[in-house]
Amino acid sequence: MSRIEARTLKGFRDYLPEAMIPKQSMLDRIARTFERHGFSPVTTPALEYTEVLTGNIGPENQKLLYRFRDHGDRDVALRFDLTVPFARMIAEHGELPRPFRRYQMGTVWRGESPGKGRYREFMQCDVDIVGSESMLAEAEILGVGCAALEGLGVERFQLRLGHRLLLNALMTSLGVDESERVQVILRELDKLLKVGEKSVRQSLRQLAGLEDDALERIFRFIRLGESEGDLLEELESLVGDQPDGPAGIAQLGEILRYAEAAGFRERIEVDLSIARGLDYYTGAVYETFLLDLPDLGSVMSGGRYDGLIGLFLGQSIPAVGISVGIDRLVVGLQELGLVPEQKTSARVLVTTFNIDTASASVEVARALRAAGIPTELYPGTPKIAKQFKYANRLGFPLVVIGGPDELAQGQVTLKDMIGGEQMIVAIADLPGEVEKRLQSLDTASERE
Amino acid sequence: MSRIEARTLKGFRDYLPEAMIPKQSMLDRIARTFERHGFSPVTTPALEYTEVLTGNIGPENQKLLYRFRDHGDRDVALRFDLTVPFARMIAEHGELPRPFRRYQMGTVWRGESPGKGRYREFMQCDVDIVGSESMLAEAEILGVGCAALEGLGVERFQLRLGHRLLLNALMTSLGVDESERVQVILRELDKLLKVGEKSVRQSLRQLAGLEDDALERIFRFIRLGESEGDLLEELESLVGDQPDGPAGIAQLGEILRYAEAAGFRERIEVDLSIARGLDYYTGAVYETFLLDLPDLGSVMSGGRYDGLIGLFLGQSIPAVGISVGIDRLVVGLQELGLVPEQKTSARVLVTTFNIDTASASVEVARALRAAGIPTELYPGTPKIAKQFKYANRLGFPLVVIGGPDELAQGQVTLKDMIGGEQMIVAIADLPGEVEKRLQSLDTASERE
Repeated sequence: MSRIEARTLKGFRDYLPEAMIPKQSMLDRIARTFERHGFSPVTTPALEYTEVLTGNIGPENQKLLYRFRDHGDRDVALRFDLTVPFARMIAEHGELPRPFRRYQMGTVWRGESPGKGRYREFMQCDVDIVGSESMLAEAEILGVGCAALEGLGVERFQLRLGHRLLLNALMTSLGVDESERVQVILRELDKLLKVGEKSVRQSLRQLAGLEDDALERIFRFIRLGESEGDLLEELESLVGDQPDGPAGIAQLGEILRYAEAAGFRERIEVDLSIARGLDYYTGAVYETFLLDLPDLGSVMSGGRYDGLIGLFLGQSIPAVGISVGIDRLVVGLQELGLVPEQKTSARVLVTTFNIDTASASVEVARALRAAGIPTELYPGTPKIAKQFKYANRLGFPLVVIGGPDELAQGQVTLKDMIGGEQMIVAIADLPGEVEKRLQSLDTASERE
Repeated sequence: MSRIEARTLKGFRDYLPEAMIPKQSMLDRIARTFERHGFSPVTTPALEYTEVLTGNIGPENQKLLYRFRDHGDRDVALRFDLTVPFARMIAEHGELPRPFRRYQMGTVWRGESPGKGRYREFMQCDVDIVGSESMLAEAEILGVGCAALEGLGVERFQLRLGHRLLLNALMTSLGVDESERVQVILRELDKLLKVGEKSVRQSLRQLAGLEDDALERIFRFIRLGESEGDLLEELESLVGDQPDGPAGIAQLGEILRYAEAAGFRERIEVDLSIARGLDYYTGAVYETFLLDLPDLGSVMSGGRYDGLIGLFLGQSIPAVGISVGIDRLVVGLQELGLVPEQKTSARVLVTTFNIDTASASVEVARALRAAGIPTELYPGTPKIAKQFKYANRLGFPLVVIGGPDELAQGQVTLKDMIGGEQMIVAIADLPGEVEKRLQSLDTASERE
């Protein structure tokens, strides 16, 4: 038989242990935070009817779908996010309670041009609350998002909070009401952090035909969050007389009040230029940046989308959510040195001297595992030097060796691979001794 | 815009919280067991080049692939198991250490006719060791499998252990050496547990043209595990003179010896009829049955597959693994009453009296969460009766209510939804009080 070439598709990748151990640990910690905030796990299928996924996305994004005909000639596609399938799930399962809150961690696929840090397969971690128009829902969502990042050891981050209603009010105050022109303006404003004010002003002039006074008004508006004065009062004077103005101002004020009570007010910077690309947002919108890595882009984004579920249900259902960009976050935290390097889940390697002592090694590994210590039994009996080389390569801090003479006396040798010293330990005492040494290693590494 | 029908594809399903909470908890516990046994997590893409997936599967199984052309006109398909992509990964990443052990939990897709308990999308939890010919690898794999089930609270299960080399030896002892006829015989033997001996004898006669003396020999062979005598000696007399006989006997003996040392010998029943359908197995093979639900089928299966990685590498690399059928296991454990019912991850609902007290409710929820208590804040301010109805529906054991007068005195009411009693608690004391009550509820439910 001819050899098959071992290769992965462009834009796809394997996560080997060195990359997956920290990612899995982060996913676990995020899930625990989501649960502590009362969000329950759900999953939806990776494949959906294409019409389910395309109902609310523009033709540009539709091209990104992995779309095909299945065995039953159905028009199907791989999900490109978790929010649209979630909306479908809510509409399909009328029996679910309201309010309904869930988290979901899952893979999504987009046929984009792969680039640095951009893949065609990546993971999203979403939390959402459905069935509440109250700003308490925003407070819960922003609160769980902040707690998730804090739970990963991230201390320096900033939530940039905008509001679609306030942007609507700004648009009507400028006399702009054609939705196409609004889209152009919002899209250009969204680029502000990336390309800077000068470039945005220029494109707003060229692409949206805005004059100088309109531009002044826009930039005064989106800079309000940085001003010294009372934000809500200034908003009142600027857009309080527009149709969506009062509601937007009231909602923003309420969110900030709850953020104060929940203890994350200082995380928030009001940034009214935030619009979020996706068409389905209707209220508060937010992006999150690591202060030490601003160029990484937003690591956690979301907003209120009161219209999306209605596409399926014919009746509008309020909803608000946030999504943690776990893959980008892994890259960021590694860059910040917040991710310890680890090549194996195990902490101890039990070596095997020869086939006659193999059963004894099996018993030793069993005892260590029974004590909850992550243990690998070397699955073979090559020369001990080879087993040590393996231990070094994977960074095991501790190795157990049992020669025939030692084992006959109920003992083994425990070797500290970092300090280099070794000691003889009775097998019965081994789990306790290993635990003690691992603890002192962990304390030492925390002190570093 | 016309309404989109909210529907899932045939053979696919949503996991709502009631189903996903126990599944997620089982997945977490299995992952912890895998890690305690020194297996590290990896992931591979859901999509692969079709030729990567089809190299070792027959035309029948190829039809089950979700296969299509991607944006770059590549012939791609969704993975149908985790083992073949894993073999591709090993071949592609020559830099990985050997032995190499990993676990992977992931979704796989097969376009089969959906039926009771059979879906087109399901999950697998695999552990494998690559690069070892030693039976210590089998011991590690079988040991981690047993520990995974025990970690889920499953006590009554049985591992049925067969061996491909011994089946080969049986075949040559019968004078059967055409691989097609061997396949027919193995496939029929695999059905033994399901259809019974009489039916298997009949099909062996009709489909493989076996005579009575051959059938006697076969059934004596596959019943050896049940015999009172010394299994290995009897195997010696039956197939010890065949080419693959001595190696198979030695390997089986070694596995059983290590199983004794690792403490799971009594879980194993040698069952030489076990062949496992997949073509890639070359040594020990195993299936696992819940003793109280034998009809559920195998919940954990695997074996040695020394040839698979060679399809990619051109050079043979030994490998052995096991796969936990998590979706089937969830169904089984629910049937056995081993899965507690839970509609939400949270244990306490903090209600909100009105918009003036909302900030105070936010603070109360914050304090409970800071103490590690899974807490939901009701995200809105409808009448308290409605919030109580919601708490009952989701089965919250505890509800916190804070009226304006109470809150003014730094107090809230804590209501026990099971016993019905309620008490006034100072907000500062609330986390401690809630913890105490949750602990006593948990103790009570364990006593049940």
